[in-house]
Amino acid sequence: MRWCRFVLSVIACACLSSAPAGADSRSIVVNLLPVPSSVQFGSGRLAVDASFEISATGTVDDRLRHAVARALVRLSRQTGLEIPRELATDATKARLTIVCDGPGAAVPSSDENESYTLEVTADRATLRAPTVVGALRGLETVLQLATADRAGWYLPAVTIQDTPRFRWRGLLIDVARHWMPMDVLKRNLDLMAAVKLNVLHLHLTEDQGFRIESKRYPSLHEKGSDGNFFTQAEMKELIAYATARGIRVVPEFDIPGHSTSWLVGHPELGSAPGPYNIERTWGIMEPALDPTRDEVYKLLDGFLGEMAALFPDAYLHIGGDENKGKQWMASERITAFMKQHDLADPHALQAYFNKRLLAIVQKHGKKMIGWDEVLHPDLPKDVVVQSWRGPKSLGEAAKQGYSGILSNGYYIDLNYPTSQHYVVDPLPDSLNLTPEEAARVLGGEACMWSEYVDPGNIDSRLWPRLAAIAERFWSPKTVTDVDDVYRRMALFSPWLEIAGSRHITGQGVLVRNLAKGGDVAAVGTLIGLIEPVKEYKRGDLHKTTQFTPLTRVSDTAQPESFEARRVNRAIDALVADAPRFSLSADNLAATFSRWRDAGPAISSAQAGSPALSEAGTMPEDMAALGTLGLEALAYLRNASAPPDGWADAALARIKTAEAPRAECQFAMLSGMRLLVAAADQRAAFDPSDAAGWQAKVRTRAGAK
Amino acid sequence: MRWCRFVLSVIACACLSSAPAGADSRSIVVNLLPVPSSVQFGSGRLAVDASFEISATGTVDDRLRHAVARALVRLSRQTGLEIPRELATDATKARLTIVCDGPGAAVPSSDENESYTLEVTADRATLRAPTVVGALRGLETVLQLATADRAGWYLPAVTIQDTPRFRWRGLLIDVARHWMPMDVLKRNLDLMAAVKLNVLHLHLTEDQGFRIESKRYPSLHEKGSDGNFFTQAEMKELIAYATARGIRVVPEFDIPGHSTSWLVGHPELGSAPGPYNIERTWGIMEPALDPTRDEVYKLLDGFLGEMAALFPDAYLHIGGDENKGKQWMASERITAFMKQHDLADPHALQAYFNKRLLAIVQKHGKKMIGWDEVLHPDLPKDVVVQSWRGPKSLGEAAKQGYSGILSNGYYIDLNYPTSQHYVVDPLPDSLNLTPEEAARVLGGEACMWSEYVDPGNIDSRLWPRLAAIAERFWSPKTVTDVDDVYRRMALFSPWLEIAGSRHITGQGVLVRNLAKGGDVAAVGTLIGLIEPVKEYKRGDLHKTTQFTPLTRVSDTAQPESFEARRVNRAIDALVADAPRFSLSADNLAATFSRWRDAGPAISSAQAGSPALSEAGTMPEDMAALGTLGLEALAYLRNASAPPDGWADAALARIKTAEAPRAECQFAMLSGMRLLVAAADQRAAFDPSDAAGWQAKVRTRAGAK
Repeated sequence: MRWCRFVLSVIACACLSSAPAGADSRSIVVNLLPVPSSVQFGSGRLAVDASFEISATGTVDDRLRHAVARALVRLSRQTGLEIPRELATDATKARLTIVCDGPGAAVPSSDENESYTLEVTADRATLRAPTVVGALRGLETVLQLATADRAGWYLPAVTIQDTPRFRWRGLLIDVARHWMPMDVLKRNLDLMAAVKLNVLHLHLTEDQGFRIESKRYPSLHEKGSDGNFFTQAEMKELIAYATARGIRVVPEFDIPGHSTSWLVGHPELGSAPGPYNIERTWGIMEPALDPTRDEVYKLLDGFLGEMAALFPDAYLHIGGDENKGKQWMASERITAFMKQHDLADPHALQAYFNKRLLAIVQKHGKKMIGWDEVLHPDLPKDVVVQSWRGPKSLGEAAKQGYSGILSNGYYIDLNYPTSQHYVVDPLPDSLNLTPEEAARVLGGEACMWSEYVDPGNIDSRLWPRLAAIAERFWSPKTVTDVDDVYRRMALFSPWLEIAGSRHITGQGVLVRNLAKGGDVAAVGTLIGLIEPVKEYKRGDLHKTTQFTPLTRVSDTAQPESFEARRVNRAIDALVADAPRFSLSADNLAATFSRWRDAGPAISSAQAGSPALSEAGTMPEDMAALGTLGLEALAYLRNASAPPDGWADAALARIKTAEAPRAECQFAMLSGMRLLVAAADQRAAFDPSDAAGWQAKVRTRAGAK
Repeated sequence: MRWCRFVLSVIACACLSSAPAGADSRSIVVNLLPVPSSVQFGSGRLAVDASFEISATGTVDDRLRHAVARALVRLSRQTGLEIPRELATDATKARLTIVCDGPGAAVPSSDENESYTLEVTADRATLRAPTVVGALRGLETVLQLATADRAGWYLPAVTIQDTPRFRWRGLLIDVARHWMPMDVLKRNLDLMAAVKLNVLHLHLTEDQGFRIESKRYPSLHEKGSDGNFFTQAEMKELIAYATARGIRVVPEFDIPGHSTSWLVGHPELGSAPGPYNIERTWGIMEPALDPTRDEVYKLLDGFLGEMAALFPDAYLHIGGDENKGKQWMASERITAFMKQHDLADPHALQAYFNKRLLAIVQKHGKKMIGWDEVLHPDLPKDVVVQSWRGPKSLGEAAKQGYSGILSNGYYIDLNYPTSQHYVVDPLPDSLNLTPEEAARVLGGEACMWSEYVDPGNIDSRLWPRLAAIAERFWSPKTVTDVDDVYRRMALFSPWLEIAGSRHITGQGVLVRNLAKGGDVAAVGTLIGLIEPVKEYKRGDLHKTTQFTPLTRVSDTAQPESFEARRVNRAIDALVADAPRFSLSADNLAATFSRWRDAGPAISSAQAGSPALSEAGTMPEDMAALGTLGLEALAYLRNASAPPDGWADAALARIKTAEAPRAECQFAMLSGMRLLVAAADQRAAFDPSDAAGWQAKVRTRAGAK
């Protein structure tokens, strides 16, 4: 594997903390995301100012030239400096020289060598890469390294050797359930490149929409898309845009299930007579292509041939997930066919379908990839598996000889915190794979399913959480410091914005719309403390369809409340600071006062905003928790015992606040419980057994 | 004139204040922008809920159908309600019925009848219009009328008759000095339609860029655009997008001056030998087309013929401004030509050029429009004048028989407050025009010149100020309440955002980028109080080019600080509340505390942000003004005299704060002076002569 060729002195882990790691590594915090394979800080700095120029030697093609121009515009916007945008004509004047050994593959490939080395001294910087794609990755590192102090902008002296851990680092965007137009994808390609992701997996067809133009079978997109599809010209433009950034575009056509939108224009392909309409609700639907009919394969041959010509990538994804075969088993003709062909169950019939499909995919020169369900003893080993089931399933596939990528654990539509995704490793030690087997785990893909995601909120669902997943795919396995990745996410959040992300601004638009002329800051305070309910619980609480506007409270709240995390951690620090209880206390007091004061303003805004009223008594809860927090702080700081029953009442109040409203929940309640428990146990503090006291407090908090 | 046919009972003025106007007009505030010609509120309300459906009778074409679908999506996003998006199939179930008499012109025209009437009762709403464009205007009114309280969303019972005062209500966007891609124009077309503007004037060619593809003369865009131009296919798409919204697209090709970008690929057209490069700096440049050469007219004939076919609008704008003729007078050949043709000066030569140009424009079936300078006794009366010089110049043209539109007073790149633009009337009484002459004043256009504007900040330059100018062009002349337009701008600011504007979010991105990890709220407090220096002073303070990133403090500050206006008005109210000094006092105290507290955090953020450091001591000034404001409040409220010298020192401190830094100035200093003067004069308050005291305070404040 090309990406394993480098033998790296991985000191990244040591560099992650602010403590010095060793003799060579200075005590400079690594402000890079993802963390490179190896970082060695030197002494001195290279100025970044209006005469910062870049030159290139070796391979200098248009892709590199355009990438340098884009990087310089971004550096310029990031710094406010007027920096020339073209490659320097006089190489001796250049601050940064790029040395590229070759252009890399014409079509980005999973075999691409994406490594680079970057050396910055006080005199100059040199970025070396075997391919232009490697140079692109290094340019992003240069942009992240740019730092400022009163003396101006600079790059710190440093030596970086970097190469990705996994060759397949993807993001799936579901453009079918909710339509995502070109500009959404383009800006997210820029952001993917910024964190060194290299695969955009487009989920192009679903029950709810057929999103790609077919010139051979125009009824597919004309009747299956509400007019929202990519023309082939647009798709070519998008692929070129991705290629310019060293990103592959892998198309997915999900069959035989998840295919209602195909059947609107081609009901004859269905396993039941039809007619079919575009599906507007969410879930696992019954419609499926009929695997027993030759005309189905004929159309697939024609359509996939067309797509194979449109999409240059080596892989073609055929979905294959979540077909329960209900339509199949309800059809006499199909069950007769199964009997005749000795196919015991729907899974066997789907394997039959997949075998014929594989022949078509291969005929058109592509490698086939599908979800877990494509695995079947009858299928050859060159089918690649995308696992939504988990690393164990992926490991078993690898043992059987299949290559695969992991998506389980990276479903970013489930509203889990970064920490939960970050700890998922595509290659956990527990798999016990041989090196050969391990090499079959190509990498992973984060999945942005779009039941609750549209162009107005997709960025806030993707960023900055996706940056942490990108680090998992790129950085050495030893890079696992959760707190540090949060620190760097916060650092690079505005940097992602200036590069085009709308993960913060999109929320602002929705908050102001919810406030309807009420106190925006107060409404923002509440929204900033809540998170949508996790997993698929949202649909249990409120049925939505493709037409439900994504401007409600649960669309406005971000999947992870960084403010709640801050509060929870501040309370941790305060309680750990016993018996002084001084750490974070002022900050928490200001926060609690804000909650207390914002409550009434939000209630009053609710009077003019039915959508905000969905939050029910959450404003009152927040205000009450603010008051309660201030009381707890006072008890702790004054070393005075709360009155009898105070803690029980407070914990009961917190419990009341747990109830989901507007499909959302407060995210700082664990901290609040800890704070109340600490106040409750304040009098019991024993300096000789601080640890015991902490444990007691945690038990009391856990008792709710 | 079609737009004068309606005889309207204009009661809008009365409705603008919250006081009841008459027997029929209820004391409901008109929350519409622009204010319609006539509004009569009734009693009752029509529910807006998930079963709000729209039906249409009479003319129901695709334009109407798509407009209804778009309006319903917006209503849905605005309210959070899941509202069906298609025209109702069962008309009896519809809440709103649209009755259209005809489709209107296939190509939007300045003769279009854009009027509509809207009647809302507790049972149903009816929108009647002579054209689909009129119905589109009415649909925007429906969206603005939607209101909510605890019982839910509704339309108030109302009868509206509405028709525009002027037929030409435009926005010029300069896409040449800074490139503005499709998405910027598309979202701004949506917003223009939302406030009933009907002309997008594209300034397509300039010294700094040639932004439209020419298939006949590809060197024009290929060499003159840095690759940033509209393909003809894109322009067709944009025109279709505008047409769908009842908006005309008027193209401008600015010649004979402002034409450097033409000469990069066609130096032979220039009046000096060349070679030419795309201009990167700002100002009035020398290059001009050579009016003495037949090949110039030959190319213009070919190129403008191509453009006349591409742009369906009846008008073609040829610019014609700011050519001083320096290149002409420096050329022996050209001066000889002038002598030979009896052309006394460059103005005469330009008139000669314009006459030949007019023949070309007319040959291709278009009406010619140009800036003031095109006016010349030799030119026929069907040339339309766009006046950057002012209503007087426009009035004189009208008296001479020329039609014209006003842009002077609407240059929104100059960073003037809304109030200044709002009071400019295209047809001031002072012109003393006959009705026939007055009819020649077709309307006006706001101008968004783009020296300091790019896709990242254009929305904050346009909105919400442009909405007030749109009202000037649409609403009756009697609608002139400045405070009320500010109130409605604030009301509709989030509504414009949910419709796609980025006027608030764009600033947030830049503030966070400036803060560089520092206290974002504190930095935002400062940025929210300052405005870029007015007119063209910015260029005097800091030379910029096309490559200067527009991410600096002066790009981040909005052209008008609504927060400073709020503070100034709160101080007005406080001082007018003598001798109680209670009105707004708490609010001001909170504001001043915020300034005082934010100062140090901003200074500390400056340490890591050279771009923020451009603001110099502004954070200290803001903090000092906060302290000073709190002192003044204390003197006023405690009726205690400040110590000797306090007021002089305070006014001196304010004077220090006046200095521009980062090409910006504080916008609340007039209020601060008033506050200090009031505190200074507190002891002199005489209840028997409150007005005299107020005057004394104002004099003291004015004395600085």
